Amino acid sequence: MYAESPFNTQCDAEKDALKSSNITFVSVSDMLALIKQYGVEKLIQGLVTTLEADFKRWLEFDKSPRFAAHSSEGVIELMPVADHQQFSFKYVNGHPKNTQIGLQTVTAFGVLSDVASGYPLMLCEMTILTALRTAATSAMMAKYLAPKNSKTLAMIGCGAQSEFQILAFKAVLGIEHVRLYDIEPNASEKCVNNLKNYVQTNALTLEICSSAEEVINGADIITTCTADKRNATILTNDMVKNSVHINAIGGDCPGKTELDSALLDRAQVFVEYEPQTRIEGDIQQLPSDSKVTEMYKVILGEEAGRTNDTQLTIFDGVGFALEDYSALRFIFELVQQNKNTQRIELLASPKDPRNLFGLTQMQQAVSQQ
Amino acid sequence: MYAESPFNTQCDAEKDALKSSNITFVSVSDMLALIKQYGVEKLIQGLVTTLEADFKRWLEFDKSPRFAAHSSEGVIELMPVADHQQFSFKYVNGHPKNTQIGLQTVTAFGVLSDVASGYPLMLCEMTILTALRTAATSAMMAKYLAPKNSKTLAMIGCGAQSEFQILAFKAVLGIEHVRLYDIEPNASEKCVNNLKNYVQTNALTLEICSSAEEVINGADIITTCTADKRNATILTNDMVKNSVHINAIGGDCPGKTELDSALLDRAQVFVEYEPQTRIEGDIQQLPSDSKVTEMYKVILGEEAGRTNDTQLTIFDGVGFALEDYSALRFIFELVQQNKNTQRIELLASPKDPRNLFGLTQMQQAVSQQ
Repeated sequence: MYAESPFNTQCDAEKDALKSSNITFVSVSDMLALIKQYGVEKLIQGLVTTLEADFKRWLEFDKSPRFAAHSSEGVIELMPVADHQQFSFKYVNGHPKNTQIGLQTVTAFGVLSDVASGYPLMLCEMTILTALRTAATSAMMAKYLAPKNSKTLAMIGCGAQSEFQILAFKAVLGIEHVRLYDIEPNASEKCVNNLKNYVQTNALTLEICSSAEEVINGADIITTCTADKRNATILTNDMVKNSVHINAIGGDCPGKTELDSALLDRAQVFVEYEPQTRIEGDIQQLPSDSKVTEMYKVILGEEAGRTNDTQLTIFDGVGFALEDYSALRFIFELVQQNKNTQRIELLASPKDPRNLFGLTQMQQAVSQQ
Repeated sequence: MYAESPFNTQCDAEKDALKSSNITFVSVSDMLALIKQYGVEKLIQGLVTTLEADFKRWLEFDKSPRFAAHSSEGVIELMPVADHQQFSFKYVNGHPKNTQIGLQTVTAFGVLSDVASGYPLMLCEMTILTALRTAATSAMMAKYLAPKNSKTLAMIGCGAQSEFQILAFKAVLGIEHVRLYDIEPNASEKCVNNLKNYVQTNALTLEICSSAEEVINGADIITTCTADKRNATILTNDMVKNSVHINAIGGDCPGKTELDSALLDRAQVFVEYEPQTRIEGDIQQLPSDSKVTEMYKVILGEEAGRTNDTQLTIFDGVGFALEDYSALRFIFELVQQNKNTQRIELLASPKDPRNLFGLTQMQQAVSQQ
């Protein structure tokens, strides 16, 4: 089932993980080491392969809406999903004012578990992994939706996600030219600076623009990824020509949208999981029976994606738990090949499972390994 | 608000935890070291104080049913709860066949988070902590429900929870005599063996009995904590006299009960959170409008617990997320006093929160501390 992953191994990673009764831990440093080892682009390519395989198995998954605990400052969410083999959940927060005190708006971690035993297999940082999987998801969807031979990407919003998006479109779709716009010029400059090696090696051209109108000029693909937490209109209907794919990922919670509703009406709209996108996506502006297509049907070939070069397509992406599952599964397979992978002692493993108390009576609280 | 905890400190633990952007980790060994340092009884006393304080704040909590992912082998659950300051969730599985392959039926871990920033503060093992909090909850409820000057406990079911229950009733209610019964004699023997130090020092007398009828003879409090996963009748109506408190904690999921419904009809029944207990507790056998009392009302003095010595009371305990929150809060306050508390690098902390990509471009993936 997992044979499509370029990183797949034949070792029975799960059995090994269960034997020790303690779990694999992928820290922030471990994730950065993986990025150093493979590079952002190769990891995103691997994620795209895994995502595609899992979206093809869409109907095998037990899907549920995310659990959200709201407060006046933000939201804490748990995003669970499971198939018959593995369960995963992601913990993720969203606190817009965090940047004022030097913290991130969004942080995340996730756990991958074995369904047969209920035991967790891996705890993994997901602040960075979510950035990778979000970019990989955008690029994977664009494989089915973007005009053929797309070469130019317009990037509207140059925040934490922007470089990952650009490299995903480069690695997966062969994008060569990127036009950038952010309401804060230093955000665009940060993005260009972070990608300067790609410019120096002629792998990419990057051009900073001064308005949304200017940035989309000549673009085959437009990514909107802005942080404004309200119903904004980053792209109006008359600004956008046909023959374009819009990757709209910044409208991702109730009250936060980016696109003119007339633009949504005019386009063919594609979503991850319709019940969630109706609440969180740009289509929250539309009547609940507006025509949308769930992407797994396109990936399975049951519904059409882009059929000709003149179509206007929109991927209204909000981020779905299955994408986190795919990302965790991908990383778990990857780190099992590494002998130095950390483990943390999260699970008690008394010799006699009924004698938990016996553990507390040991003379010394030694590691159980 | 937290002043009642005997372990309370004035240090601003949360602020410290957030500053490093990485989180406190309490491993299995760390939990065992806390038990070694304080002893099971003192930890349970501390937990009872914390539980009581939090049950008094019942209406401040955002309560929701647990999320459960069922499979043919068992269930994986996420149990979230929050007040305006802290959010917690517990991950817990239930897989009865696990013991056949040397794994535990139930394992658990939990996370405590700061609501204002959404950042996790602590990851904590909860296989052992759940055993402590379950025992502490039983004893805390019995403070309000057991006959005055209860000295004799009958323990029916001598599995993983039994020793913790016995020590909780000793520490909190002054129980001196314990009568034990398990359908498997070696389970009772394991329990007696684990508690032999208490017998040698005359702190407890322990007596193994050969039937449920025999074990409840002369008991002031009867704890039922059996593992049989079906609708069993461990105690029939005619077996049990008045003037007793039944701490029924083994009937804790749909299709798993321990008490004769006529016994429930005859007694005053107390529960944690009625919507959950209706589904999971022994009262699943009763009509949905049967009279039960939520314990927070008793603890607040709004409803009566035990009013006289001749009453028959039943605590139909199933385990509620608030108890895990209390346990995590208690442990978090405790470990903040310890300079050697482990931290794990679960959260990315770029200097500029918008420049997550910058982290991936560092020449070396070094620890961020």
